[in-house]
Amino acid sequence: MKQDLQQIQAPIAIEMADFEKKFRSFMQSRVKLLDHITSYIVRRKGKQMRPMFVFLTSGLSGNITEATYRGAALIELLHTATLVHDDVVDDANYRRGFFSINALWKNKIAVLVGDYLLSRGLLLSVENNDFELLKIVSDAVREMSEGELLQISKARKLDITEEVYYTIIRQKTASLIASCCAVGAATAGANKENTEKMRLFGEKVGMAFQIKDDLFDYGEDVVGKPVGIDIKEKKMTLPLIYALNKASWIEKKKIIYLIRNKSENKKTVNEIIEFVKNSGGLEYSQNIMNNFYQEALNLLADFPDSTYKSSLSSLVTYTIERKK
Amino acid sequence: MKQDLQQIQAPIAIEMADFEKKFRSFMQSRVKLLDHITSYIVRRKGKQMRPMFVFLTSGLSGNITEATYRGAALIELLHTATLVHDDVVDDANYRRGFFSINALWKNKIAVLVGDYLLSRGLLLSVENNDFELLKIVSDAVREMSEGELLQISKARKLDITEEVYYTIIRQKTASLIASCCAVGAATAGANKENTEKMRLFGEKVGMAFQIKDDLFDYGEDVVGKPVGIDIKEKKMTLPLIYALNKASWIEKKKIIYLIRNKSENKKTVNEIIEFVKNSGGLEYSQNIMNNFYQEALNLLADFPDSTYKSSLSSLVTYTIERKK
Repeated sequence: MKQDLQQIQAPIAIEMADFEKKFRSFMQSRVKLLDHITSYIVRRKGKQMRPMFVFLTSGLSGNITEATYRGAALIELLHTATLVHDDVVDDANYRRGFFSINALWKNKIAVLVGDYLLSRGLLLSVENNDFELLKIVSDAVREMSEGELLQISKARKLDITEEVYYTIIRQKTASLIASCCAVGAATAGANKENTEKMRLFGEKVGMAFQIKDDLFDYGEDVVGKPVGIDIKEKKMTLPLIYALNKASWIEKKKIIYLIRNKSENKKTVNEIIEFVKNSGGLEYSQNIMNNFYQEALNLLADFPDSTYKSSLSSLVTYTIERKK
Repeated sequence: MKQDLQQIQAPIAIEMADFEKKFRSFMQSRVKLLDHITSYIVRRKGKQMRPMFVFLTSGLSGNITEATYRGAALIELLHTATLVHDDVVDDANYRRGFFSINALWKNKIAVLVGDYLLSRGLLLSVENNDFELLKIVSDAVREMSEGELLQISKARKLDITEEVYYTIIRQKTASLIASCCAVGAATAGANKENTEKMRLFGEKVGMAFQIKDDLFDYGEDVVGKPVGIDIKEKKMTLPLIYALNKASWIEKKKIIYLIRNKSENKKTVNEIIEFVKNSGGLEYSQNIMNNFYQEALNLLADFPDSTYKSSLSSLVTYTIERKK
């Protein structure tokens, strides 16, 4: 799969390498401890999906510009800030196989580092008068925290519907990928209509991406990745929501009881996973994911053919076929 | 003292009342849990010093406008976000005599609520094309997190100098009050020179404000407020820095040893407080504070007399004479 990503990156290989250098310089501060932590963050970087979406949609829409780099950096800074805060929120000790910031430097510093990264992104845009970028991105920032909070409040009550699930994943995941694609288009000089089309394309991809992620929790595909974490945390995702909707009144009551009172228990978690599998919850979710996938590809079809377009299409396919 | 603040507010009483209503509406979200928490935050509001600085400097510089309200809201949202995060950072259970957000809803939610408030402020400015405001404020946001992180890293090494102390308090406290005054001036139509003068005025006030705060930790003035918290946390502030600079080599070594190894001990904390008092650290800090106070008043003197000016002057005096 790593090879796939390398092939996808081919048309933007130079830009991605330049971006990495620029991103490092954007993070620099006047505090030694902070520089130490941010270089640790850069070293454990992930798949760089978000910058890839920015540069590919930018190439597709016109010319990659300096503003495209700043847009990609703004989004990556926000995304990184969110991950650092998420690890505090989830009390997680690992991220991408490395220790998390809160594990190494405690919550105190992790919260502040997240705030610093957020403000660094903001400042980068403000200093360069990138107000168009700020408009696209700032709404996503609000949506991400709202979506997370909505998910937490629903996890407490266990009363989530399929509609609310879509709202949550649209806010917490799809909004940022949508911003990537809108930023890519806007900084390449696309008109409003095409920028909006790209935004919508990114939103569809983001929806598919999150459903895929939620499927992993039921053991789909992944080898060696822990399953049932969402159940443990009472996060109800699409496979479970579907299974509960289909279940009899008495069965539903039993499962809700188990989630509410025994979700810490490994045997219970396995029982719930089996219940979901038997109800066809995985197939249903895969279908919904495929619908979003198709909708995304349909939006892409309107654009003229190019290496960017075929890479974007492969990236979307990667999103739903990835094994982790 | 509360009466003092009411008198100071007289020229902007209507604006402050309007502001409170607007601020509530700015915080509204689409998530019930979030609205529940933000209305709790509004209920335990503090002295409202920052909005007061915005509206008074605005009145002094020209006419209070709609943009002034949005500027005050932006700053108050950022400030509130910082307080919510600070309580997570410090593991504090109380704020202004109320339970902290993390105490009531756990760290998880407190981090997200802080992020939400930050993004709400950002969005408010972006939606209204307040890019001038964003420029003034975004630098302060970065400085605040940098300053806090600098303070933490210095607390670990105990190698802080007077110069570094000024950098820390300029970043973590003075930068936001400076922004208040610059925002007040800019939104009232002040020219660049006067906006910069107001910014500098706010910075001086902020420096005095933080030194006053740091003096409280040595038992100055306050009745019933815990002392020695900073020492316990190894935060070296001006009174202690001065005392250590004046001390003999052997005395300094002993005090550093005590801070490093026994700062949890109440007896040790009292011993350090006595050491600082005997060295004249409190008088020295008061002098420095008074210098900043005078510098602030001198900057104010250039502006034409008005009720705003005399209220601002009283507010500055309140800053260094307050008992808590």
